[in-house]
Amino acid sequence: MQAIIKAKSQVGLELAQVPKPSPSSREVLVRVTKTGICGTDRHIYEWDAWASGRIKPPMIVGHEFVGIVEQIGNAVEAVRLGDRVSGEGHIGCGRCYCCRTGLSHICNKVDLLGVDVNGAFGEYLVLPESNIWKVDPRICDDQACLFDPFGNAMHTVMAQPISGKQLLVTGCGTIGLMAIGIAHAGGADKIIAVDPNPAKLELAKIMGADHVLPKAQEKIVKNLTDRDGVDVLLEMCGHPQAIHDGFRCVRNGGQVALLGIPPGDITVEWTEQIIFKGLSIRGINGRKMFDTWYQCESFLRRLPKLIEPVITHKFNYDEFEKGIKAMQSGNACKVILDWNQTH
Amino acid sequence: MQAIIKAKSQVGLELAQVPKPSPSSREVLVRVTKTGICGTDRHIYEWDAWASGRIKPPMIVGHEFVGIVEQIGNAVEAVRLGDRVSGEGHIGCGRCYCCRTGLSHICNKVDLLGVDVNGAFGEYLVLPESNIWKVDPRICDDQACLFDPFGNAMHTVMAQPISGKQLLVTGCGTIGLMAIGIAHAGGADKIIAVDPNPAKLELAKIMGADHVLPKAQEKIVKNLTDRDGVDVLLEMCGHPQAIHDGFRCVRNGGQVALLGIPPGDITVEWTEQIIFKGLSIRGINGRKMFDTWYQCESFLRRLPKLIEPVITHKFNYDEFEKGIKAMQSGNACKVILDWNQTH
Amino acid sequence: MQAIIKAKSQVGLELAQVPKPSPSSREVLVRVTKTGICGTDRHIYEWDAWASGRIKPPMIVGHEFVGIVEQIGNAVEAVRLGDRVSGEGHIGCGRCYCCRTGLSHICNKVDLLGVDVNGAFGEYLVLPESNIWKVDPRICDDQACLFDPFGNAMHTVMAQPISGKQLLVTGCGTIGLMAIGIAHAGGADKIIAVDPNPAKLELAKIMGADHVLPKAQEKIVKNLTDRDGVDVLLEMCGHPQAIHDGFRCVRNGGQVALLGIPPGDITVEWTEQIIFKGLSIRGINGRKMFDTWYQCESFLRRLPKLIEPVITHKFNYDEFEKGIKAMQSGNACKVILDWNQTH
Amino acid sequence: MQAIIKAKSQVGLELAQVPKPSPSSREVLVRVTKTGICGTDRHIYEWDAWASGRIKPPMIVGHEFVGIVEQIGNAVEAVRLGDRVSGEGHIGCGRCYCCRTGLSHICNKVDLLGVDVNGAFGEYLVLPESNIWKVDPRICDDQACLFDPFGNAMHTVMAQPISGKQLLVTGCGTIGLMAIGIAHAGGADKIIAVDPNPAKLELAKIMGADHVLPKAQEKIVKNLTDRDGVDVLLEMCGHPQAIHDGFRCVRNGGQVALLGIPPGDITVEWTEQIIFKGLSIRGINGRKMFDTWYQCESFLRRLPKLIEPVITHKFNYDEFEKGIKAMQSGNACKVILDWNQTH
Repeated sequence: MQAIIKAKSQVGLELAQVPKPSPSSREVLVRVTKTGICGTDRHIYEWDAWASGRIKPPMIVGHEFVGIVEQIGNAVEAVRLGDRVSGEGHIGCGRCYCCRTGLSHICNKVDLLGVDVNGAFGEYLVLPESNIWKVDPRICDDQACLFDPFGNAMHTVMAQPISGKQLLVTGCGTIGLMAIGIAHAGGADKIIAVDPNPAKLELAKIMGADHVLPKAQEKIVKNLTDRDGVDVLLEMCGHPQAIHDGFRCVRNGGQVALLGIPPGDITVEWTEQIIFKGLSIRGINGRKMFDTWYQCESFLRRLPKLIEPVITHKFNYDEFEKGIKAMQSGNACKVILDWNQTH
Repeated sequence: MQAIIKAKSQVGLELAQVPKPSPSSREVLVRVTKTGICGTDRHIYEWDAWASGRIKPPMIVGHEFVGIVEQIGNAVEAVRLGDRVSGEGHIGCGRCYCCRTGLSHICNKVDLLGVDVNGAFGEYLVLPESNIWKVDPRICDDQACLFDPFGNAMHTVMAQPISGKQLLVTGCGTIGLMAIGIAHAGGADKIIAVDPNPAKLELAKIMGADHVLPKAQEKIVKNLTDRDGVDVLLEMCGHPQAIHDGFRCVRNGGQVALLGIPPGDITVEWTEQIIFKGLSIRGINGRKMFDTWYQCESFLRRLPKLIEPVITHKFNYDEFEKGIKAMQSGNACKVILDWNQTH
Repeated sequence: MQAIIKAKSQVGLELAQVPKPSPSSREVLVRVTKTGICGTDRHIYEWDAWASGRIKPPMIVGHEFVGIVEQIGNAVEAVRLGDRVSGEGHIGCGRCYCCRTGLSHICNKVDLLGVDVNGAFGEYLVLPESNIWKVDPRICDDQACLFDPFGNAMHTVMAQPISGKQLLVTGCGTIGLMAIGIAHAGGADKIIAVDPNPAKLELAKIMGADHVLPKAQEKIVKNLTDRDGVDVLLEMCGHPQAIHDGFRCVRNGGQVALLGIPPGDITVEWTEQIIFKGLSIRGINGRKMFDTWYQCESFLRRLPKLIEPVITHKFNYDEFEKGIKAMQSGNACKVILDWNQTH
Repeated sequence: MQAIIKAKSQVGLELAQVPKPSPSSREVLVRVTKTGICGTDRHIYEWDAWASGRIKPPMIVGHEFVGIVEQIGNAVEAVRLGDRVSGEGHIGCGRCYCCRTGLSHICNKVDLLGVDVNGAFGEYLVLPESNIWKVDPRICDDQACLFDPFGNAMHTVMAQPISGKQLLVTGCGTIGLMAIGIAHAGGADKIIAVDPNPAKLELAKIMGADHVLPKAQEKIVKNLTDRDGVDVLLEMCGHPQAIHDGFRCVRNGGQVALLGIPPGDITVEWTEQIIFKGLSIRGINGRKMFDTWYQCESFLRRLPKLIEPVITHKFNYDEFEKGIKAMQSGNACKVILDWNQTH
C-alpha cells in the first residue's frame, strides 16, 4: 500500500510503497479515507530536536484519521466490518497506575500513533480495538478525521467550568480556534482571543471571540473584564511572552489550562502570578479516554459547522508537501488529506 | 500601650509606647496574650525589597495571636467581652468578585494585619468582628496563637486529597513541618520530606515523615513510591532548585500545591513536567475563610500535641530580638512571644 | 406607602397603606419599580399548610424585585443613592458554620424576604447592604426583577457539568423553563422536557428543548439518548410521579439536581435507582451568594431575550389579584407587577 | 475440584465436585487460598427474592478471595504464574458509556463473580486478566481476601472529604465497621456510630468511633456536633428507620453516601431533609476500578491491624454452613474460609 513515511533521519517525508499491515488478535484494520495534518507531523517533517530524538525511521506518520473497518482480529468483539471509525492515537500500556485509574492518556509508557508506532498516513492502519471510536453518521468525514485535535481543544476547555465565565485564549492556531468555538457554544460570557497574525484573529471572530488582540496587554484585557482579570486562561500557543502576559491577565482565584508547547523552559512570575493569586493550573495532554470523545461527538453532531472555518486547505494525499508548505507559510489552519479516491 | 513597631524605613524593629487603639462600630479590641513570629515579620525586620516596598512606617507588626476580648464596637453582634479569640489577618474589601464568591483570602484590595494596618505585636489590637475566631477551650494558648501558619499548612494539604496518597514535601520550615503533621494525621500513605538542614529532617520524622532526604533526587524519590513518582507535591520552601527537583518527582496526573515563596522568578520545565504530565497545580495564599479555620480547630483539639514539636523557642515579648536572631540562625522553627505577664 | 400584605391568618392578600420603612445603619432603602410574583407568594395567598405555619401577619410579601436606591444607612459603604438594584432575599445570620463557609443561602437561621421579614411588594423595601446586587445597565427591568427565580434555575443547572450532556427536565414551570434556556445556552447536547401541560411544552421548545413529552416514560426517554439514560436529571416540579419516573430515566453514574418541592414525603426506589446506579444527587435551595448572581448577570446581559418567553403576564401592582388568578389558572408562567407609575 | 455451589433453586448451598475451570486467552486461573463470606452469599444461601430472581443454578458462589496464579491465557501479559492475587468481581462489558469513561463498576451489563458467573468458593477460579489485583506482600491472606468489602467501605468513605469532618455511621456490620476504621485513620474529627446491637457498638469503639448510639436520635447526635448536625452521613445498613433518622442528623450543606441496601422502597422527607438542606448524596456500588483498590492497598499495608477486629470467625471451607449460621446469629462480622490445606 501507499503511505507517507519518515524514511531516513533527515528533513522531509516521502510517499512510499509499504506492506499493508495486518491486525493481531485484539486489533482492527482500517481503510483510511481522510486524514488531518497535525503540527506534530510538521515537526517530524522538519526533523526538529524533539522529532529526531523520538522517531525511529522508517515510520508511517500521522494520527488524525477517519476510515472504514476492513478486517478485525479474532478477539475483537465490539467493532465490526464496515464500521466508519476514527480512533485515539494514545495507546496506553494498560497496567500502570495511570492506566488503571482512568488516566491512560498520560500513561508513561504510551505508544503514540504515527510517532512510536506506524501511523495513519497510509491507505491502511491498525489500531487496538479499545482505541477505536465509531463515528456518528451525522458527522461528515472532514470533521470526523479531526477528533484528535478537536479533542485536545475540548479537553482544554472542559478542564474548568466556562459557562458564564470570562476567558482569554492565547494563540489562535487550529486548536486555539477550536477551543474558542467550544467555549462559545458552551456559554462563555466573554472570549478574548490573542494572536499576532491578523488572519487568525479574523478566524477567531468567526469562531465566536468577542474581542481580538495582537497581544495580551494586562491593562487592556483587564478593562475588558468586570472583575480585575479573566476567570480562565486557555494557553494554546506555548510562546514564552504569551504565557508571561497571559498569567498577568488572570484574576485572583482564576483557572489556567496549558496546552501550548513552548520550545524550552519557561520563566514564570511564580509568587505574584501563581501563589498570591491562588491560581489553579492544569497541564493538558491528549484527550480523556473516552470522556472527551463523547463530548466531541456531542458538539460535532449538534453543531455540524462548528469547526468548518478551521479547515483551510484540502489536498489529495500525494500532495502532502503542499499541505506542509501551507502550514509553514503561517496562513493555513487545518489541512486535510483525502485518501478516498484510491479505493 | 507597648508594641513592637517598624518605626523607620530601615533594618530592625523596636519596642515603643504607642496609643492603645479603640474599636470602631464593627470592630473588636483584643488584649493580646501570646503571639507567634512569622517569616513575614522577619522580612519586615530585615527590611528586604518586599518589605520596604509595602510597609509604611510607623506600623505595629505581627499577625499571629491569641488574646481576650476587652471591648466591642456598638454594631458587633456575635463576639462578647471575655471571649478568648484568635483572628484572620486578611481583611478583605467585602465588595469585589473574590469577596462575594467566598475567596476573600485572595481579595485584591486585602489589608494584611501587621503589614497594611497595625498588627498583633502589641498589648492590644483591633480587628473587624467578621475576622475574629473564638478558640475552643481544648486548644492551649501556645497553639491557639498559631492558627494563622497552621492554617497555611492546612490550606496547602487540603488543596487535594491526601488519604492513601504518596507525598513529597519540599521544605521543612515551620509550615512544611505542620503540613507533614496534618498529612500524617489525614491518612497519607507515605510522606517523603526534603530539607538541607538535618535538624529539620529530625523534626520531619517526629511530625510523621516516613522518609527524609537532603534533596529531592528524582530517582531516589521515585524508587520510594510504587507508581513512578509521588501523587502529591507540597512545595513549602520556594527554593528554585527544590521546585525544579520537586516537579520531576511527581507522577503523571499528580497534584502540586505551591506555598513557598521564591526570591524571584522561577524557570520551569513547562512541557515535560507540567503539560506532558497533565499536572494540576494550585497556588496557596492565606487560609480559606473560614473553612480552613474549622479544619484547623478540628485537628488542634483532637490532637493537642500535633504541632508542639514545631514550637522551638518562647520569649517574653520584650525579648523579641532574641526570637528574630533564633530564626536567622536557622535553628528555630516557631518562636512564640508571651505578652501575658503585663496584665 | 402602599403595599401588598398578608393582613390576617386567612386566604388572600390585600393592598394596604403601611409605614414607609427606614434603613438601619447597614441597610439600604429601595424604591421598587418592578416585582415578580413567585409560587411562594401564591402559597401565602392560598394560606396553605406551609404558609400558615410560617408567616406571622401582618407581613408585606414578595421577594422578586428591581428598584432604585433612595436612602442608605450610615455604615453602608458600597451602595449609592440612585443605584439600580435587585437583591438576595435570603438574609443569613452571618455567624453559623454555613454562613462562615460560603453557604449562607442555606443558613439555618435565615430570614426570608417577604416571608420572615417584610418583603418587596411595596413601594419601598429595606435590605442589608450585603444582600444588594447592582444591576448591569444592559439588563432591562422586566428581567432584572427576576434574578431570584432565574438564580434558582441557574443554581440547579450549574450544580453539575451540562456542556455536551443529555438532560431530562421534569416540570416546565417558570424555573424549569428558565433552566432549559440556560442549559441550551450552556452547550447541553440534548434537552428532553416533560410537562403534562401542552402549552408549557410549547414554551419548552421555544426555550431550547429538543424533545418534549407529557410524561417521562423510561423506555421513550432512554431511546432518545445514546447511553442508556440521560446524564442529568433536573427535577423542577416536585410531583411524586415525575420524581419516580425521572430517576428511572437517568443512566448509571448520572447526576440529579432537585429543586421541585413535593407536597409531602416521597417514596423512592432507593436500591435500584440510587445505589446500584451510583447516582449523585443535589438538593437545590436558593442561590449561591454570590456566585450564582454573577452567572445570572452574565447570561442575562449576553442573551437579553433569554427569559422573555417566560414572562406571560404584566399588571399594575394594584391588579395583583389578576396575577394570582392567572397563575392559578395554570396558563401563566411569570407574572410581573409594575410599581413604577406611582413615582 | 471441590466448590460450594447453589445446586438448585431452593434454600441452601452445598459442597460439590465440579470441573476445574480453564482460562480463555485473556483469563487467569487462580488457586484459591482464602475467601470471605459476604452478605450476598448469605442472601443466595437463603434464596431470598433478589437471589431467586438473579441466580441461575448451578452456580459456584463467592467473590471475596485471595489465591495464587496457576495458569494464564495466551493473551495475558501482566500477570504471571505464582503471583499472589485477589481480584475485582465486577466484570464490565468494556464497551458501554460507563465502561469507556472510567465507571465500569456500574456497567449496566456487568457480570458479577459468584452471581452471574462462577465464583470464588472453589479450589480454583478464572477471572479476566484486567480484573486481577496483585497483592502487596505486606498484606496477609486474611486481609487480602477482603479487598472487596474493604473496597466497598473505602469507596463509601472516600466519596467525600472526611479529614476534619464530623461523621455519622448508621450500621456497624462488617462494611460499616471497616468504614469507621478508614475514617478514623483518614483524620475524621468525630465519628458517631449507630447500631442496635451492643456487641457491634463495642467493635465500633475498637475501630475508632468516638460515640456509639443504639439509634440516631436527631437531638442527641446534633448535640454531639458543634455545627447543627454532622457534616457527613455514611449510611451502611439500609434500614428504613436508620435512613430516616440519619438524614435528620445531617447539617445543611452536608454530604451523604449510601451503601446499605434496604429491603424495598424508602420514604424520604424530600423537602425538609434534602432540598432545603442543600444536601449532596451519592449512591455507592462496588469499588472504583482501580482507584479504590490502590487506596485499599495503601491502608492495608500501612495499618496491618486495621480490619483485624472485624474478622470474627474462621473455618475450613467444608464448614461453610457454620459460617452462614454465625452470620445468621447476628454475632458474626466477617467469616473467613480457608481453602489452603487442600494443596
